[in-house]
Amino acid sequence: MPSANLVILGATGDLTQRLLMPALYRLYHLGYARGLRITGYSIEPWSRERFRNHIYKALRAFAPDYQGTKARRFCAALDYISGGLDAKQMIPLVQHIRGCALFYLALPPPLFGTAAVALGEAGLAKAGGSWRRLVVEKPFGTDLNSAEALRKQIHSQWGEDQLLRIDHFLGKETTQNLMVFRFANRFLEPLWNSAHVSQVQISCPETLGVENRAAYYDHAGALRDMLQNHLMQLFCLTAMEPPSNWDAEVLRDHKVEVLRAVVPFTARSVRRYSARGQYVAGRIGRKRVPAYRREPGIPGNSRTETFAALRFEVNNWRWQGVPFYLRSGKRMASSQWEIAVQFKHVPDALPGGKAAPNNWMVFRIQPDASLNLLANAKRPGAELDAHTVVLTAPYARNPDKEFSAYEQLLLDALTGDCSHFLRFDEVEWAWRLLGPVLTAWRHGKPEPYASGSEGPAAQNRLLAPGHHWRPVRVSPGDLP
Amino acid sequence: MPSANLVILGATGDLTQRLLMPALYRLYHLGYARGLRITGYSIEPWSRERFRNHIYKALRAFAPDYQGTKARRFCAALDYISGGLDAKQMIPLVQHIRGCALFYLALPPPLFGTAAVALGEAGLAKAGGSWRRLVVEKPFGTDLNSAEALRKQIHSQWGEDQLLRIDHFLGKETTQNLMVFRFANRFLEPLWNSAHVSQVQISCPETLGVENRAAYYDHAGALRDMLQNHLMQLFCLTAMEPPSNWDAEVLRDHKVEVLRAVVPFTARSVRRYSARGQYVAGRIGRKRVPAYRREPGIPGNSRTETFAALRFEVNNWRWQGVPFYLRSGKRMASSQWEIAVQFKHVPDALPGGKAAPNNWMVFRIQPDASLNLLANAKRPGAELDAHTVVLTAPYARNPDKEFSAYEQLLLDALTGDCSHFLRFDEVEWAWRLLGPVLTAWRHGKPEPYASGSEGPAAQNRLLAPGHHWRPVRVSPGDLP
Repeated sequence: MPSANLVILGATGDLTQRLLMPALYRLYHLGYARGLRITGYSIEPWSRERFRNHIYKALRAFAPDYQGTKARRFCAALDYISGGLDAKQMIPLVQHIRGCALFYLALPPPLFGTAAVALGEAGLAKAGGSWRRLVVEKPFGTDLNSAEALRKQIHSQWGEDQLLRIDHFLGKETTQNLMVFRFANRFLEPLWNSAHVSQVQISCPETLGVENRAAYYDHAGALRDMLQNHLMQLFCLTAMEPPSNWDAEVLRDHKVEVLRAVVPFTARSVRRYSARGQYVAGRIGRKRVPAYRREPGIPGNSRTETFAALRFEVNNWRWQGVPFYLRSGKRMASSQWEIAVQFKHVPDALPGGKAAPNNWMVFRIQPDASLNLLANAKRPGAELDAHTVVLTAPYARNPDKEFSAYEQLLLDALTGDCSHFLRFDEVEWAWRLLGPVLTAWRHGKPEPYASGSEGPAAQNRLLAPGHHWRPVRVSPGDLP
Repeated sequence: MPSANLVILGATGDLTQRLLMPALYRLYHLGYARGLRITGYSIEPWSRERFRNHIYKALRAFAPDYQGTKARRFCAALDYISGGLDAKQMIPLVQHIRGCALFYLALPPPLFGTAAVALGEAGLAKAGGSWRRLVVEKPFGTDLNSAEALRKQIHSQWGEDQLLRIDHFLGKETTQNLMVFRFANRFLEPLWNSAHVSQVQISCPETLGVENRAAYYDHAGALRDMLQNHLMQLFCLTAMEPPSNWDAEVLRDHKVEVLRAVVPFTARSVRRYSARGQYVAGRIGRKRVPAYRREPGIPGNSRTETFAALRFEVNNWRWQGVPFYLRSGKRMASSQWEIAVQFKHVPDALPGGKAAPNNWMVFRIQPDASLNLLANAKRPGAELDAHTVVLTAPYARNPDKEFSAYEQLLLDALTGDCSHFLRFDEVEWAWRLLGPVLTAWRHGKPEPYASGSEGPAAQNRLLAPGHHWRPVRVSPGDLP
């Protein structure tokens, strides 16, 4: 890594102490942060010492590979500058930063635009021969209009090639494994199309409730919080055409292309192809948990959805006729995330005209990453009959060599690899697709579903005849 | 099962006591042998009591589910008739057998023809409305001419539809699983052709030496003992077109069709596409074992091959350009039998233009049956790189419900299901294919290979550029 500055705006906040600093400390620990000069920036009138102490405590609490001496040495190199989000207040920062610099907006989303403009107006977006980049956290807008407005605001001072929009999902080891799996296996590509695939299910349930994010979540809801970004990215990686190389622009071109191939929702298709729910009281394991409307900070009459499901139809040569089902919800029966591709059936040509079960390819993302192929084998015994066996391979983790999502993304941002960041048109098309759903969901209300359940019955309305949601709950008969 | 007779010719021999009677006893034990009347027939002038005692002892020694009382009851129902292999001596047998009957030739191969003719001349091949069938053990001839002569001899008294030629391999649970696997999985058929497959290896090594079969084996050799029948059948099941149903005639039509599609060997191609070896002294595990020529009963100058390898080119739409490599040998490094299908490579489109390893689909037959897909996943760590992971599913055995090969085949023979028996044209085309190899191997001699090794170096001559034999020995880096 070349020598460079990293400036964190919002350096006294939660994201910095919980995720950014532990990630930077690990990069430092592994020798990836040589030549990196880290400066915290925030409105708090702290001294540099106070900031260093604050971060030191944060590392002790949140860094998995915390070591006293190393952490002290890491903190001793931190700088801190206090100031607000306008160009004049940034003069000390301008004087402090020379050469290449990455500005990380670890701020509340409503401040993204203001901060980006202030940095630009202070002259920090340009530095002659040295690069200057800006990392913007998610969410990028709350609908197409607000995203477009934010883009214009930021672009008044920054070029698109300087912008790195975070979806930390893309930095995850398993997300990257999905790309390798899709494009490094000969056996997949010939099967990966409407001739052989009957449906795709992308399912990201969680057992967690709203936790300590009430204020944000009740304005966002499941559609904005999960579907618009994480699930949409998983959809893109599953459905996109194979890129001819792994260049960031090529990858993102392919992702945008498949987003544009999704048949836009109409007022009518929204009713059929979307479903929402809100959790009521129930049990997660043996623990009783309250209804969403009883959670601290949530209004008693909230109509925010905690579960969202969509069905995409993709109008291109590869996928026409294959429904993609996406769903995510809080307080569901498990936190088992997977992309499950069902293949069409074989001719009913077993002895006695018996049918064999459909094959599935299941890419399990969490809790444990694994590859799984549901195949048919002979049922042991006298009769020629088929039953399903699971060919499975765990994704062998290597904690020593793996990066967490934030470690990966910080490293990419510093080295200028944009593959794992969102380009504006990805954000734009995701919002454009969801527009009619956001509009429709202003009216009516989500269907209640019990905490710890499979989600609302409404989700079944999406399914084509013969399709069924795979169970959320892991049971002995399911995948290992 | 309808009531019927089973007559075993050669009832005092080794096959009867080691395999047939234990199999019949288990069918009886499981309730599949109701209405079956078993009669032993042999030249030995034994009494019925002596025969029953003999079988009782055999069951105690060889039947895995032996129970004293049940075995005694089973033996108490056995009949025995002493006589030779001509029609006149069979008169007591003729008087004894009424209705449906299966005649099982558990005799040395040179007697097959004589026995079949004698049974026919005695009038036992026909019985008005009742079926009469003849089971012929392998080998059926020792080359095309002798097989044709044997066919003519038997056909003088029996119709082809009455004949059941044993290849006990076809009765094996795992062989039948291979058929289910191939035709009950949607994901296989689109991949199973020359567009995606680069090579197929059918490998059946054994750690055993010639054991107590010296007299037979030194005349047969590996080509006749294994390749001509077992490996050829595995080849057929792997390469044949999907049948539209599992009717015995349809299955056998498809097997013959693919045998006929194999490009015939010429005097020239034999030199390139065949290899043979003979084991010399070495180690199997920690045990020192002698050379083939030092085995009891083997001439010190024997030129019989104990290892044979062939390469087939298949001239049809599905397989042109895909080599099929077949090999089998005694005293090799393992007894790991498998059918391994290698897929072509993917574009070198990983970051940095790196190539991903080729995928393989490995159908493991023994020692443990399993399905294995060698796929590529991301190598955990900072770099986007691929490495091979094995998606595996053991073939869940069910000893209580499964039949051994002889149990399955006896049951099939009694119920008239010919799917797992060889039709004459299968035998004929197998011999026809091997003719030029048999001719060429009359000259020269096999290459010595050490016991416990991977076999002779000559086998590598067969391989197309870029192809390598998969290792015979299981090592930690190999398949589980």
